Amino acid sequence: MHTNTNKLAIGIDIGGTSTKFGIVNSKGEILEQNKISSTQHDDINLFIAELYRAINPLIEKYGGKNAIKGIGIGAPNGNFYTGTIEYAPNLIWKGIIPLANLIQNAFNLPTFLTNDANAAAFGEMKYGKAKDIKHFITITLGTGVGSGIVIDGNIVLGHDGFAGELGHTIIRHNGRYHKGTGAYGSLEAYASANGIKQTALELLSSTNNSSLLRNYQPEEITSEIIYNCAIQEDKIAKQVFEFTGEILGEALANFVMFSSPEMVVLFGGIAKAGDLLLIPTQKAMEKNLLPIFKNKVKLVLSNLHESDAAILGASALV
Amino acid sequence: MHTNTNKLAIGIDIGGTSTKFGIVNSKGEILEQNKISSTQHDDINLFIAELYRAINPLIEKYGGKNAIKGIGIGAPNGNFYTGTIEYAPNLIWKGIIPLANLIQNAFNLPTFLTNDANAAAFGEMKYGKAKDIKHFITITLGTGVGSGIVIDGNIVLGHDGFAGELGHTIIRHNGRYHKGTGAYGSLEAYASANGIKQTALELLSSTNNSSLLRNYQPEEITSEIIYNCAIQEDKIAKQVFEFTGEILGEALANFVMFSSPEMVVLFGGIAKAGDLLLIPTQKAMEKNLLPIFKNKVKLVLSNLHESDAAILGASALV
Repeated sequence: MHTNTNKLAIGIDIGGTSTKFGIVNSKGEILEQNKISSTQHDDINLFIAELYRAINPLIEKYGGKNAIKGIGIGAPNGNFYTGTIEYAPNLIWKGIIPLANLIQNAFNLPTFLTNDANAAAFGEMKYGKAKDIKHFITITLGTGVGSGIVIDGNIVLGHDGFAGELGHTIIRHNGRYHKGTGAYGSLEAYASANGIKQTALELLSSTNNSSLLRNYQPEEITSEIIYNCAIQEDKIAKQVFEFTGEILGEALANFVMFSSPEMVVLFGGIAKAGDLLLIPTQKAMEKNLLPIFKNKVKLVLSNLHESDAAILGASALV
Repeated sequence: MHTNTNKLAIGIDIGGTSTKFGIVNSKGEILEQNKISSTQHDDINLFIAELYRAINPLIEKYGGKNAIKGIGIGAPNGNFYTGTIEYAPNLIWKGIIPLANLIQNAFNLPTFLTNDANAAAFGEMKYGKAKDIKHFITITLGTGVGSGIVIDGNIVLGHDGFAGELGHTIIRHNGRYHKGTGAYGSLEAYASANGIKQTALELLSSTNNSSLLRNYQPEEITSEIIYNCAIQEDKIAKQVFEFTGEILGEALANFVMFSSPEMVVLFGGIAKAGDLLLIPTQKAMEKNLLPIFKNKVKLVLSNLHESDAAILGASALV
């Protein structure tokens, strides 16, 4: 008897802080989702064992392995061609990790891997603002700054599967140091959650002006706290987003002059700042574009729920 | 009677200084070539009339219009989709020029237009070092700095045909002013012929050290003169190429982290400096790449004769 086999997929989104996963049906609905920490196990095998313990009950609940077509994973520095994550600066596992193989062996299900940001771009193209758009770039602003580049409807993978590391492009020569990569002045050093926190700390120590941010210990400050202060019209907190937007917008102008996308989608925790970030970013982007590109590119915030998009995008690999 | 009709193509390469053209056979051989100035006529119609007077005798010599399949043009800011050049900072014709139409009407032959740098990339892919390479970037270093980006074997045009303006990406925030575009710190402000001259003038005025370059009036100095002094071991002239390479290499690292090409081909007048430019460029590129990209990208000089490649590339559009 022919039953509902192979109609579900598992999407896994491995971030620097947490790993989110869900079971997705063929309509792109997440039937159930959950998460575990990405930082509890230095040993990748222990991480995968924990992931299995977390996901297997979901598999059983929704009809067992026969009901699952496969597993799609988005992870930083994830390589679609090789199924490995290689030297991911924001993950605790160093070197080259054969992630797709390890997960395929643990679950005994077909497993596909790509860059976490590419997975988000997939989600955006299938279910988000970039639906039916053939040329766009997704920038994910979170623990790291990632990117998914779509040209002629295809994710750009490059000759080796590693294309689209726009967070690591240098935007300020001899600029801010990035502990994870050793680079100076990369976009991620400014536009990631940590980068924004560092901007706040620098602005706070450059002046004696009062600020709601001074109610917090430096180590307590997060991008969410900065956002909450900014919407209360705190001047320094607002400056943080203006500075971040200026740098992000200049970087976006460079990306636009590379592939001339119709749309740039901002995505991830930092993008929740909305107009606080979007307005200065747009202004700086337009300022730095050649005339032929001005007033053409739609700069938008993703309307997909963050973890949904990553899980959906990853599941779409299957 | 069936004769040798439609076997030839005309390739035209419009540069900031001169416009080169040639008649090309189906084997990719340039049967004859010549050039006219790009700067003698403010009125585009007069330029096209002169171009017609120069090319028509060649057409007659090789069998008349019936022997010519069509005309391919490479020009700065040339748009394949619309056949226009739009706001080209290095050409004397301003605004939007319907170049393909104007030339098609003048010659009464099918006419195709693309970015001059895309035409060079075409030439590189068909006849040069990027033969059989599916992911590469060509950087043309001349009056301007142009680029042709190839991903999965296709030239990247973007949603509007203007992709690949890498010379105008910002590499030094608040850096050197570019008179043509009004931008500060774009790659072209440093790595073009004028940019290199300006670097030499800045270095000469920053020190009293002796230099062969001091034998010239500032307005006489060209990138060729700087090169000739550098191969005579002139310290300041060599510094010019080191500084240029440092900036170019940093920019290339950013481009590599976008599309992960297998090869970057340097092309054009400035690239003739060879190792003087190539060695510092390679060093700076590698220094700024994420580990996953290091020691992977082939950085090479084009082995095509400059005007040949542009003419061949343009003719390949037909």
